Amino acid sequence: MRFVQLPLQFVRKQSTALSLFAPALSVPFSPTCDFHSQQSRLPVFASQSRRVSLENCKMLKYLNQTEAINVDQELFSEYKFSVDQLMELAGLSCAHAVAKCFPTERHRRVLVCCGPGNNGGDGLVCARHLALLGYTPSIYYPKPTPKPLYENLLHQCQRMDICSIAECPNVQNAAGSYDLIVDALFGFSFKPPVRVDFVPVVELLQQTKLPIASVDIPSGWDVEKGKVNECDFEPSLLISLTAPKLCAKHFKGEHHFLGGRFVPPALQEKYQLNLPAYPGSEVCVKL
Amino acid sequence: MRFVQLPLQFVRKQSTALSLFAPALSVPFSPTCDFHSQQSRLPVFASQSRRVSLENCKMLKYLNQTEAINVDQELFSEYKFSVDQLMELAGLSCAHAVAKCFPTERHRRVLVCCGPGNNGGDGLVCARHLALLGYTPSIYYPKPTPKPLYENLLHQCQRMDICSIAECPNVQNAAGSYDLIVDALFGFSFKPPVRVDFVPVVELLQQTKLPIASVDIPSGWDVEKGKVNECDFEPSLLISLTAPKLCAKHFKGEHHFLGGRFVPPALQEKYQLNLPAYPGSEVCVKL
Repeated sequence: MRFVQLPLQFVRKQSTALSLFAPALSVPFSPTCDFHSQQSRLPVFASQSRRVSLENCKMLKYLNQTEAINVDQELFSEYKFSVDQLMELAGLSCAHAVAKCFPTERHRRVLVCCGPGNNGGDGLVCARHLALLGYTPSIYYPKPTPKPLYENLLHQCQRMDICSIAECPNVQNAAGSYDLIVDALFGFSFKPPVRVDFVPVVELLQQTKLPIASVDIPSGWDVEKGKVNECDFEPSLLISLTAPKLCAKHFKGEHHFLGGRFVPPALQEKYQLNLPAYPGSEVCVKL
Repeated sequence: MRFVQLPLQFVRKQSTALSLFAPALSVPFSPTCDFHSQQSRLPVFASQSRRVSLENCKMLKYLNQTEAINVDQELFSEYKFSVDQLMELAGLSCAHAVAKCFPTERHRRVLVCCGPGNNGGDGLVCARHLALLGYTPSIYYPKPTPKPLYENLLHQCQRMDICSIAECPNVQNAAGSYDLIVDALFGFSFKPPVRVDFVPVVELLQQTKLPIASVDIPSGWDVEKGKVNECDFEPSLLISLTAPKLCAKHFKGEHHFLGGRFVPPALQEKYQLNLPAYPGSEVCVKL
């Protein structure tokens, strides 16, 4: 019998056939776990002439809500990043992912819907970078957070001549005024129900035919289980930040990107994130 | 006589022949001012059958020291950006410019020399992003600034396993240990002389044969006049941040990039920066 060695953690997630050999298996294994490039390393069980199927073998970690909160907290407490820094990189990567999926030529007018927390802050940063990339963003920010970080982010947008709209457009008006909606309402700390100030905009997201790009979590989804209500929307683009959350496993939209290229290797190791390699100098990567 | 209209400020910088017509001249003029694309717009003085040479006509503004300080201050006071935000974008663009000019394959080991001010802070951010891009940076930071911003940036580097070296290497040791030096010592606020703690590293920069990438200002240069001493070094790569400073007119090295893709249009307009268009989603642009 010929076989190659595979990392124990990989083996644990794979077929039973492999797991029989787990203790004996270890190999340098690309975290991107591209099936085709790994073909030559697949174990061949001569006695059974069978290749183990690794088609869904990307070992990328999907975080539960507790892990997502903890990773975030460690970036600030242990690694001493500031919220400003990481929010800037997060919002920048969201803008870049939007640009890759929805070029300005056909999606110039973008409505960026910002919630009350860090997800909304990411949205404000994203809006500013979208403007620098040639889009015409507008902001809908029904409950601005009364703290300097958010006030300053909003001010930066206003000084970039990014208009804020006071009322949530209805489906028809949105269709006539915008080409794309960025959903930066709720993130991984969200716990239902949707508060009353945000009901109109969540309904817009649920009813619109415009493409939606969601920042980290499609707003209203359960962070782990995904869609919970019939009416929950499916974004066209999901930009997972830092690492995807469990709900992303239920994402069936067209584009899933990872952004937030700032995770220190030691933190990746601790949580076994197995992030894919970002291509070149790109700040986001298609999953 | 056929002629086209050119912006007054452009005309002022050009030949006397044009200036005779200055008051009458104005045209939509591409800020990138590419000579070849402007050929068809050149004035043709029928009576003299002469084309005005516009070969050096890029209208990009080069800031004097006072303007550089003022632009910076306005970004913080008027536009309410935080130092964290802009330093993160500046350092990121430096890392990207380095990656474009000095690929990891032949320039993996990078010595990042950081001074006591914001230029040093840009260097710390750059070092962290270089590590994320696959380089092996080391930091030489002889006078760490005892403020939370810089302490945190240094901490972030340390938690990325970026080593700090305590002593400045001599020319020979540097040649054996590194492939590239990033000069993040002094920025646009620098006024000579070089303080004693930095003499060894400035001498290294002056004597080394390793390529040098300077952040914003080649350290030790007069911010407006350029090289002042015979021994002043010429970096291979100059990454001007926000807008180039006057000393960059004296830069004769191989690569001049612009970084810091965050300048609001209104600020560009106020200072007539005439920044070139950044290609696509790039965070730096070759000048």
